[in-house]
Amino acid sequence: MEITHIEHLGIAVKSIEASLPYYEGVLGLKCYNIEVVADQKVKTAFFMVGKTKIELLEATSEDSAIAKFIEKKGEGVHHIAFAVPDLAAALSYVEDKGVQLIDKAPRAGAEGLNIAFLHPKTTCGVLTELCAAKDAGKA
Amino acid sequence: MEITHIEHLGIAVKSIEASLPYYEGVLGLKCYNIEVVADQKVKTAFFMVGKTKIELLEATSEDSAIAKFIEKKGEGVHHIAFAVPDLAAALSYVEDKGVQLIDKAPRAGAEGLNIAFLHPKTTCGVLTELCAAKDAGKA
Repeated sequence: MEITHIEHLGIAVKSIEASLPYYEGVLGLKCYNIEVVADQKVKTAFFMVGKTKIELLEATSEDSAIAKFIEKKGEGVHHIAFAVPDLAAALSYVEDKGVQLIDKAPRAGAEGLNIAFLHPKTTCGVLTELCAAKDAGKA
Repeated sequence: MEITHIEHLGIAVKSIEASLPYYEGVLGLKCYNIEVVADQKVKTAFFMVGKTKIELLEATSEDSAIAKFIEKKGEGVHHIAFAVPDLAAALSYVEDKGVQLIDKAPRAGAEGLNIAFLHPKTTCGVLTELCAAKDAGKA
């Protein structure tokens, strides 16, 4: 499998608004997009650091996976997303290698990407996302 | 403050040896360095993904911070390290902005870098490292 770079890091926060003074005011990063992903029950805020984005994730509902994550582990890094050239091929490849897929097929994520999550039980404890541009690969 | 890129992600694992089949065999990354950082009581393994490294961290002692992290939160992302051109200047800058420094001054880290950690209480819950090449900045 070819991974070109870390596309983004998803970081669970209690409040995007309360986190902006740190990410913008201290780290000097610029929030260039705030987007609600309704089916994931999250509000997201994006910053670019080199070629990698930081995606802050705030729960929009108490039953959001992000709310549950913060309840269990506190604020912190929620997932790593690797960019791959062909998402469907990558999913097939990692499944053959024994990785459990949370998403059996690519689905729409934030920032106009196709994404799929891999189960942390089979990725050394790290919730892992693979993603690709919608027009990438064989699709 | 200028951050050029994410230098590395530190990921706490119970065993580097047990994690290599996933990182090398599934993700296709190549471990190019294994290094013990004695004063941190960790063994580290490095992989390059684009311009960012993944640093696996295995405790070499039960009282290592990594052992305590895994006990509390399980395996997963332990810290984010941002590359800055001048580490001493960056530490002074973030301290002025109210960030609590774990390391008041740069110290030697793995991979020949000077590093310093910021307290997660003041970085939205994410243990954060700043790092620079030893010959960088004013030092």
